[in-house]
Amino acid sequence: MNFLNEVTERFPDAVSFAPGRPYEGFFDTEDLFAHLRRYVDHLAAGGASRDAVRTALYQYGPTAGRIRELIARSLHTDEGIDVPPESIVVTVGAQEAMLLTLRALFAEPSDVLLVVSPCYVGITGAARLLDIPVVPVEERAEGVACADVEAAVLAQRARGRRPRALYVVPDHSNPSGNTLSRHTREELLDLAARHDLLILEDSPYRLVSPGPRLPALKSLDRQRRVVHIGSYAKTVFPGARVGFVVADQPVTDEGGGQGLLAAELARIKSMVTVNTPALSQAAVAGALLAAEGSLAAFNAGPARHYGAALRALLDALERRLPKEWRTAHGVSWNRPTGGFFLTLRVPFTADDAALLRSAGEHGVIWTPMAHFHPESGGEHAIRLSFSSLGPEEIEDGVDRLAGFLRVEADRSLADTSRTAGYAS
Amino acid sequence: MNFLNEVTERFPDAVSFAPGRPYEGFFDTEDLFAHLRRYVDHLAAGGASRDAVRTALYQYGPTAGRIRELIARSLHTDEGIDVPPESIVVTVGAQEAMLLTLRALFAEPSDVLLVVSPCYVGITGAARLLDIPVVPVEERAEGVACADVEAAVLAQRARGRRPRALYVVPDHSNPSGNTLSRHTREELLDLAARHDLLILEDSPYRLVSPGPRLPALKSLDRQRRVVHIGSYAKTVFPGARVGFVVADQPVTDEGGGQGLLAAELARIKSMVTVNTPALSQAAVAGALLAAEGSLAAFNAGPARHYGAALRALLDALERRLPKEWRTAHGVSWNRPTGGFFLTLRVPFTADDAALLRSAGEHGVIWTPMAHFHPESGGEHAIRLSFSSLGPEEIEDGVDRLAGFLRVEADRSLADTSRTAGYAS
Repeated sequence: MNFLNEVTERFPDAVSFAPGRPYEGFFDTEDLFAHLRRYVDHLAAGGASRDAVRTALYQYGPTAGRIRELIARSLHTDEGIDVPPESIVVTVGAQEAMLLTLRALFAEPSDVLLVVSPCYVGITGAARLLDIPVVPVEERAEGVACADVEAAVLAQRARGRRPRALYVVPDHSNPSGNTLSRHTREELLDLAARHDLLILEDSPYRLVSPGPRLPALKSLDRQRRVVHIGSYAKTVFPGARVGFVVADQPVTDEGGGQGLLAAELARIKSMVTVNTPALSQAAVAGALLAAEGSLAAFNAGPARHYGAALRALLDALERRLPKEWRTAHGVSWNRPTGGFFLTLRVPFTADDAALLRSAGEHGVIWTPMAHFHPESGGEHAIRLSFSSLGPEEIEDGVDRLAGFLRVEADRSLADTSRTAGYAS
Repeated sequence: MNFLNEVTERFPDAVSFAPGRPYEGFFDTEDLFAHLRRYVDHLAAGGASRDAVRTALYQYGPTAGRIRELIARSLHTDEGIDVPPESIVVTVGAQEAMLLTLRALFAEPSDVLLVVSPCYVGITGAARLLDIPVVPVEERAEGVACADVEAAVLAQRARGRRPRALYVVPDHSNPSGNTLSRHTREELLDLAARHDLLILEDSPYRLVSPGPRLPALKSLDRQRRVVHIGSYAKTVFPGARVGFVVADQPVTDEGGGQGLLAAELARIKSMVTVNTPALSQAAVAGALLAAEGSLAAFNAGPARHYGAALRALLDALERRLPKEWRTAHGVSWNRPTGGFFLTLRVPFTADDAALLRSAGEHGVIWTPMAHFHPESGGEHAIRLSFSSLGPEEIEDGVDRLAGFLRVEADRSLADTSRTAGYAS
């Protein structure tokens, strides 16, 4: 991603559809103080002495986290996920949750991680750090197909490898924007049970998306096949760096005792970060308490905002790149129902060179989808992120993007005609 | 350490010399709000707009950290360590700094980590997580001897292994309480240069200890042989979970370019925790700003307090266990000049069973030194921590401890006499 950063620095006036950051309009510095105060008051109201409140904020805390009860309550209220607080580990963002989970689950050199591809770079990075082989399962236009996952499982088995887990972002995936259907969710759970596979569910965009939600995989999980990874970066704020993992799988520990996978994750966490900062947990807890424990209620405003931004982007694309032109030039995009991203398919190679032309000549930046493919793929696709942009920037950005696409698509069409001329 | 936790829970009325936590008497919940406010005001005074302040607190930040300039300034002011901010990575406690450093430095299966033993469990834990072999170099009574480090280096070389780095806590070591002399510091730096070894310097107790300080290894480092690991857990507060690493070693990156080791650590950090929480960094920055950038000045009160606690512990031991009795029974202790810990040597096996007798029959808890030995060793030693105790608890605790030691030492003396009777 270094090239992307360089381009962004070199063209500061470009409109950027690259960053997956939340919109800052919801944030107010004073709210931070209010969140912390609310948590302090909550502890005091629960009977904590002045000294106990001080200890909760200042000292080392339990490795698995201080706010597990509040998280469990919000999972129940918002997601219909019913798990005991003991199955939760509070982490330094979803990233640490991924690292701990991979370190705990992958023991043998033959263990491989399946990922839906294109794929969030956090999980492939954590796998690389731990030298865990990653096997991509390519998404189809509407998202990953269960048959493709099963084929990958069987192919890996045939090579003597053990597919240990599948990583998937079921809702409004980063980077593609796709959402798995209810049917595919059921199929995946069934497949996981049949092939002794775990599913790593990472779904950070659910509560900041408009409209009804399909059930989280974890809420449908009757056989403890799903390890659910959570993030408060989008629902509370990124600067807290608080995430969590629900790992209610029974495991046998070194001493032969029975416990939960969560306890094993906490043991590993003690060697990575020791604790998640008490201060960050306090700020997140304050936000969880703001809407009576419902993070969905807390995010009603942001969900409306992101929904409107998504509609604005889709409408602008539709207006600037009408259907006839798109069909003639091989340009298309998917229509996510939420999240921060969509996939734009283009007839030319959307690589770093194309990005440089786009930024330099048209003043618009985006992410080559190839960056999100663990192996090859995505050469003709672009990730557009709309999460950090206001409505005017979206309008302006799509204007510029349409200019870029028209130039590139025309050139591509000319190239194709020439090539076709040679070939036939 | 699980057994220790169990014992602590089972005997809540025991005085515990086990935890290495800071004393809470310095902390006030309202100070947290004041630290954050001070940092917000500092940013505003430096010209940051309301929106820029909000971004600094709420958003994802630079992977290497937001407060590197303030840290560099305090290292210069307090420690005479002059390094550019670019050589610093802000981490989630010293623990993450250790993990990143080990991951970056240890590339070959033949690479081994030397540690001064007994050894802080954070570093051996991080090494275990990364499957890095650890070679202990046993401390002598006054601390590690350079000749022993050199012997270990040569022995490992002879076995075809490459000693890559030595981990050491030069000042008031956890667990032993020992401090390296100025001469040993110079010798270690010389040895590191001769044997192409790096030194991982971890020194969290320097600024909370009384009296003059010997120079930090990093301040004497003319050949960039020292990676300096820092922690704000003792100097600011543990709940922030902020540490840092100074890594100004030149390295060649994957693309063949020249850079600093710090940049490589940041790259690894992006796969572990992405950022250190902006909120935690803000609280620490507020504390750094409180005493005009001097952390030593900020900690003048705590340093006096811990110095007094150490003297109280040494005085109480001296009174309760007079010299004649100690000599006759083979009990002794070292006399640290600061830090949180001292080593008590005993004539009996100071194992979990002895700890249980101590807690159950005498109401006093401590840590078996054997817990801190990566291999064997420490069976006749105890770590006493005085950091979290007030003066009355120290008096009462030593009373109980003396009772326990007298019973055990008498039994041990009787056993020795019997054994001697058989043997001679």
